[in-house]
Amino acid sequence: MTFEFTDVFIEKLQGYIESQNDAAITKLFKEVHYADVAEVLEEVTFDEAIYIIKLLDSDKTSDILTELDEDIREKILENLSAKEIAEELVELDTDDAADIIGELSDERQKNVIKEIQDDELAADLKELLSYEEDTAGALMAKELVKVYETWTVAGCMRRIRGQAKDVTRVHSIYVVDKEDKLVGRLSLKDLIIAKSDQKIAEISKPKVDYVLVDENDEQVAKIMAKYDLEAIPVVDENKVLLGRITIDDIVDVLKEEADKDYQLAAGLTQDVDSDDSILDLTKARLPWLFLGLLGGIGAFLIMEGFDDVFSKYAALFFFTPLIAAMAGNVGVQSSAIIVQGLANDDVKGSINSRLIKEMLLALLNGVLLAIVLFLFVWVYQGKINTALAISVSLVVVIVVAGLIGTFVPLFLNKRGIDPAIATGPFITTSNDIFGILIYFLIAKMILGI
Amino acid sequence: MTFEFTDVFIEKLQGYIESQNDAAITKLFKEVHYADVAEVLEEVTFDEAIYIIKLLDSDKTSDILTELDEDIREKILENLSAKEIAEELVELDTDDAADIIGELSDERQKNVIKEIQDDELAADLKELLSYEEDTAGALMAKELVKVYETWTVAGCMRRIRGQAKDVTRVHSIYVVDKEDKLVGRLSLKDLIIAKSDQKIAEISKPKVDYVLVDENDEQVAKIMAKYDLEAIPVVDENKVLLGRITIDDIVDVLKEEADKDYQLAAGLTQDVDSDDSILDLTKARLPWLFLGLLGGIGAFLIMEGFDDVFSKYAALFFFTPLIAAMAGNVGVQSSAIIVQGLANDDVKGSINSRLIKEMLLALLNGVLLAIVLFLFVWVYQGKINTALAISVSLVVVIVVAGLIGTFVPLFLNKRGIDPAIATGPFITTSNDIFGILIYFLIAKMILGI
Repeated sequence: MTFEFTDVFIEKLQGYIESQNDAAITKLFKEVHYADVAEVLEEVTFDEAIYIIKLLDSDKTSDILTELDEDIREKILENLSAKEIAEELVELDTDDAADIIGELSDERQKNVIKEIQDDELAADLKELLSYEEDTAGALMAKELVKVYETWTVAGCMRRIRGQAKDVTRVHSIYVVDKEDKLVGRLSLKDLIIAKSDQKIAEISKPKVDYVLVDENDEQVAKIMAKYDLEAIPVVDENKVLLGRITIDDIVDVLKEEADKDYQLAAGLTQDVDSDDSILDLTKARLPWLFLGLLGGIGAFLIMEGFDDVFSKYAALFFFTPLIAAMAGNVGVQSSAIIVQGLANDDVKGSINSRLIKEMLLALLNGVLLAIVLFLFVWVYQGKINTALAISVSLVVVIVVAGLIGTFVPLFLNKRGIDPAIATGPFITTSNDIFGILIYFLIAKMILGI
Repeated sequence: MTFEFTDVFIEKLQGYIESQNDAAITKLFKEVHYADVAEVLEEVTFDEAIYIIKLLDSDKTSDILTELDEDIREKILENLSAKEIAEELVELDTDDAADIIGELSDERQKNVIKEIQDDELAADLKELLSYEEDTAGALMAKELVKVYETWTVAGCMRRIRGQAKDVTRVHSIYVVDKEDKLVGRLSLKDLIIAKSDQKIAEISKPKVDYVLVDENDEQVAKIMAKYDLEAIPVVDENKVLLGRITIDDIVDVLKEEADKDYQLAAGLTQDVDSDDSILDLTKARLPWLFLGLLGGIGAFLIMEGFDDVFSKYAALFFFTPLIAAMAGNVGVQSSAIIVQGLANDDVKGSINSRLIKEMLLALLNGVLLAIVLFLFVWVYQGKINTALAISVSLVVVIVVAGLIGTFVPLFLNKRGIDPAIATGPFITTSNDIFGILIYFLIAKMILGI
């Protein structure tokens, strides 16, 4: 059922553009979903994309714009006049329109809004643009179906016919009092099942979940996912109904959040993808690599400080990559579990109890691994002292790495900082340095040097 | 608006359980959402949880069961009779009921289904259990609203009143022909807006997205997210309508997939969380750590092979943690970008063009980092030769690490293996070994030893 665009499709399209065969292009895209058209536009040249956008109807191109990659959309919008952009926006739901207009400069935002004929829409967009990023207000749409508690079912059905035309998906009907305060909700199903002379107040459900307009969007996503909500009304501090957030917006928030955590754990500044330019990718990757470089220089300085023991215990030095790798791996494992637990609100109890658990866990893992390492060094080198020194150090390094990996994200979270920053290169680099330092100190102690 | 359970709440609850004050317990939970009750049950002792489950009404406990952690649910189900489980199941949508029953042994599954009085429900559950895991069939519910194309709007409304009572959320109404083949869809809104004597065939939309019953669930999630669908019908190979998948199930699939990728990247066998036992966590962590240990032993053997150059170029050895860390970081960065791109269907073009891009990117990053390292070694040690050898090696190591990080997930994906396995410890370990080997070989060459 999905559209798979092929090289043949692209070639055909480019041929039509070259020969300016507009009818053929329109026909080619007739049955294609806007999300697929967006993918096609990302494959052709920029001039070709502009040609197609200007050719197709604005009810289709507006949806295409919402699906495009931000970089490409920005370039396309630069090539459209304020009036042309306004024509696209009126076709969209207010939340999507506000997202697009929000990417423009303040100057252009004003010009575009001036071009919107519908005063109510212009006011709605201005309101949506006024909310801070990453809040419920910035995520919500103004489109919703609202009824007054004093109406009858029959009157309500009549009026809903009018309102519902503008609302893509109805989900819930929100019931308000005469001051527009949210007092209940109804489903279309309730309305269909009810008798036509019943009052709305009689059939509406008074228990209605809602979020405040300044609530953080990740929090909204958590609430909607936890309570399996498909839409949630947004209210101000007086409970006046302002808008509504639907589950498809939440899917995007959840996806972005997961992508961000994953990228941070991998040592990427968020918001890059594999199709970005080499320069953008360098900006995302280089800072973390530079951190790793500094860590490596730190490790160098530590090892240099112990170089007098090399002649007698060269093996100690040859095991530093192993020690660094184990410290890094354990640190990432323990911090990832905490970061994911925090994201899912799964981390209960005190920091101390977490640290004790991690210590026991790291101790168990460390001892098991140390036994293997001990046997290897003993058999391979025949020196039981060296084997003992390296294995005992490994256990201590693993325990400390686990504790750092557990503590840092919990600490950051307490301070209101995104704990995901703590995973990846940050933990591996600090654990490399601590690990190697601890390793040499303990090994020296055991070997009595 | 959300329920925050406190220690006081738990203490009060435990007091009531001790004094067997059932009325007070029921009252305590009266206004609490089932998702919150599930969280409370995860905090109290197992016996207390069982006590509460047996006390509350089955229309509430059935929903609570769906929200519980799998381990706890399993233990609770062991304490319920087949009849008691059947009573819970009839309260649930078929997809949730099938998920719960699917966790039981084959023997118990049969016993529970035998206890279900409603023959149609029993048949539906048997059907759902017959689909393979991770397919559309295993994800779908049998509940949906279905109308025949020959019906009128008025007749349709009458019959929908009957069907819709069993369907939590209506979303779309599916239009079928007399052979139950899917031929179109309608929204409740369309129906409300239409005139009552119109035929369904006149107002239904013939273009309806659907998925086949054996489609992979991650693919279904991608389709629904891409096309912003809130529900999608599931059909068999003859297009006969079998069931429907709703967006809330997809939210779970997306979350699970993101969690799995994140955990693999962090070196955790999937499906652990911070509340699991130390033994479970060890099982998830130890295999990857053991892999790291083997890698470390490999690095040891390589360094030992070069130990004759130590007396003259000790600094070379002190920089091995730096080389290993950089190789690991670059490898994880490049593989993470590919893994994420593959998950989002963003990776187009040939493997070769990806590798060329990564080579240029790694070269750029590598040269910038090598300049810093060169200056440090030169200034600190005063040996321009050593500085040059180490910096040039670093560039080569970074390029090779980037290529391995890019190639491995692309290669795994081509072979139909989950590319997420390639990130994390797998890439860091292999890059450690390759990195250190390349580093010594090149440094030796440049220093002419």
